[in-house]
Amino acid sequence: MSSAKSPPVSPLAPATVPDLPPLPGVRIATSQAGIRYSGRTDVLYVDLAPGTRAAGVFTRSKCPSAPVDWCREALSHGAARAVVVNSGNANAFTGRLGREAVAKTVQIAAQAAGCSDREVYVASTGVIGEPLPAERFEGVLADCAARATDGPAAWAEAARAIMTTDTFPKLATRTAEIDGVRVTINGIAKGAGMIAPDMATMLAFVFTDAALPQAALQALLAAGTQTSFNCVTVDGDTSTSDTLLLFSTAKAGNAEIADAADPRLAGFKAALDSLLIELAQLVAKDGEGARKFVTVRVTGAESDASAHRIAMSIANSPLVKTAVAGEDANWGRVVMAVGKAGEPADRDRLAIWFGDVRVAVQGARDPDYSEDAASAVMREPEIGIRVDLGLGEGQARVWTCDLTKAYIEINGDYRS
Amino acid sequence: MSSAKSPPVSPLAPATVPDLPPLPGVRIATSQAGIRYSGRTDVLYVDLAPGTRAAGVFTRSKCPSAPVDWCREALSHGAARAVVVNSGNANAFTGRLGREAVAKTVQIAAQAAGCSDREVYVASTGVIGEPLPAERFEGVLADCAARATDGPAAWAEAARAIMTTDTFPKLATRTAEIDGVRVTINGIAKGAGMIAPDMATMLAFVFTDAALPQAALQALLAAGTQTSFNCVTVDGDTSTSDTLLLFSTAKAGNAEIADAADPRLAGFKAALDSLLIELAQLVAKDGEGARKFVTVRVTGAESDASAHRIAMSIANSPLVKTAVAGEDANWGRVVMAVGKAGEPADRDRLAIWFGDVRVAVQGARDPDYSEDAASAVMREPEIGIRVDLGLGEGQARVWTCDLTKAYIEINGDYRS
Repeated sequence: MSSAKSPPVSPLAPATVPDLPPLPGVRIATSQAGIRYSGRTDVLYVDLAPGTRAAGVFTRSKCPSAPVDWCREALSHGAARAVVVNSGNANAFTGRLGREAVAKTVQIAAQAAGCSDREVYVASTGVIGEPLPAERFEGVLADCAARATDGPAAWAEAARAIMTTDTFPKLATRTAEIDGVRVTINGIAKGAGMIAPDMATMLAFVFTDAALPQAALQALLAAGTQTSFNCVTVDGDTSTSDTLLLFSTAKAGNAEIADAADPRLAGFKAALDSLLIELAQLVAKDGEGARKFVTVRVTGAESDASAHRIAMSIANSPLVKTAVAGEDANWGRVVMAVGKAGEPADRDRLAIWFGDVRVAVQGARDPDYSEDAASAVMREPEIGIRVDLGLGEGQARVWTCDLTKAYIEINGDYRS
Repeated sequence: MSSAKSPPVSPLAPATVPDLPPLPGVRIATSQAGIRYSGRTDVLYVDLAPGTRAAGVFTRSKCPSAPVDWCREALSHGAARAVVVNSGNANAFTGRLGREAVAKTVQIAAQAAGCSDREVYVASTGVIGEPLPAERFEGVLADCAARATDGPAAWAEAARAIMTTDTFPKLATRTAEIDGVRVTINGIAKGAGMIAPDMATMLAFVFTDAALPQAALQALLAAGTQTSFNCVTVDGDTSTSDTLLLFSTAKAGNAEIADAADPRLAGFKAALDSLLIELAQLVAKDGEGARKFVTVRVTGAESDASAHRIAMSIANSPLVKTAVAGEDANWGRVVMAVGKAGEPADRDRLAIWFGDVRVAVQGARDPDYSEDAASAVMREPEIGIRVDLGLGEGQARVWTCDLTKAYIEINGDYRS
């Protein structure tokens, strides 16, 4: 049971838990359903005002969880009145029982919220393959609906209720203006790896009072995901349950703008993108066993897509990640990771930097390279690795963490 | 310096080092050039009789080492008289200096063997990015040429001279008949991971006295590689220097058969494939920090290629590999790895076995599944993981090892 472990808080955790402002149209309650954990909250219930629109992006896994299937279906309608998230059981790979558990959860939540089933969104995170005892939500969700509040502590409680092996709650907030009307964006996330020990899922829920048509909301979320959550990796193991939902209560009273590319939405888009990046980085900073936060930048690629694949090849390489853990400026392994990516690359044009220290240029060790200077960079808690391919204008940036013995302990030793 | 570490021998190592028979036309010598190691051999010299033909397959890395570039060029001629392998320095990512070091090595070897440069094959394994001091081979290779022998100890010495972080020498031998003529195949390999700490390379050298045209030799080697070395992974990190060379001295006196698909070559093909598989498995069994040898079988896929990609996704998953290290029958992680492969899969048709224990069927936990029985399987040193997709006839089999704290120590801690 993860509750027995409670690992130490990541050294990369923010110093304080941010205070999120109330968000008109959003009320929150958490509870203990005892799905898997004891002595902690494991259910999040979010009440959304009538008229709330939803957008979402989900795992690309070919074996998605039952809740992911449900949310995809619900999104085809686009309206939202309630969100139910449980931690401790992912309801993934549970077959017919999984679909029945989702139906039961949705039915209980719809009754509590006084809405239709299709207006309820569900997400589950925890052990894979165990049936989810949805009947535990009987009473619990009705009680949550009655208690739901927009009080100052609500957002932090929400972030805590959805944690599994996370070592700290993940929250972020932004404000922006649309046509001179001030709007707020609040977001929470959980995840300690693309998949955590015996647990599956990266979950993130973002809420705004900005009034936006569902299509624009979806377009903005999809675009923002490309530069945030799709640029973070801990171990390259994609969860069966990854879920990112964005809800707009439309309470801010701004004029609705249908075109996501409308310049009047530029400020909102920038704020949303920035919030998604902050949440994504928090996931990497809580990566299982992580001691170092790594930013990998690739420039000079033939295309941005090519740069992204090369950056991910570096960020997912066990040998690069163990070198970072060992504070070893091992640029030979970066070369290896570039080479194995299968993307256009010219060995003799490669240049590599650790932080500001150029260690390799034109396909060979930089003649002026100082091992001491590079080692000093590697001792920092946050490390930048940059590769320039010298081929074109394509570039990408991704975030990851180091690979330490603690990762093996968390994922391998805990049952033995 | 790796020489300082000398890790304990892998628990998966064979009980004894096999005795390889002499192979007509092949003479071997090893020496100490002091490239990086002290107190051990680090150079292998192989003298090949006139008329020897060569075939080879190499890393698909976009940043191959200078020796790989040279061998690809030499193969366009196809004749071979000498092979020089050094351990301790991979001569990879060394730019112009790397090409010059290869030219120097080849020139010294050609003089020693009394052949043309293009008949010399070179391979290097060791640290990346350090210039290789080829002048160290002056005298050393001439001495090797004078001492080269086909004595019984020669093959084991050859296998030891090319080791880097390997914990045991890797040798295999087979015999076959071609048109009633008995032929022999001897092979050696090194590698303790697709790439080893600060070292790059999986190297394998196979020799036969069977008379085969170069084209047939190349066709047989390429085919055999698909079911052997291309089916083994330790950490998914492809080396810049992977090299597999096959040499035929044609001393057996069998009638030459031009068509690799000729049924009269079936016995030879089977023997070659079997030898390549044995060498490939030895590499996985010496995987860095390995305590378990894992065979992943995927059946019921839409195609063999699809099955192979899914099997590799499972074999490369850090979460599957840490679960094996923890002796945890964590089939949820196998589902995750199937899902993330991006290949056709139907969650609700999946079945999963650990050894003979079926733990999941029709997309859910097997109702008859016994955790005890599965755990007993996981405690074995050799573990089979099988997934049936229930979609088609495609199948694949790959080999890997578990991911342990020792891997992190070897690759991360050794410099810190």
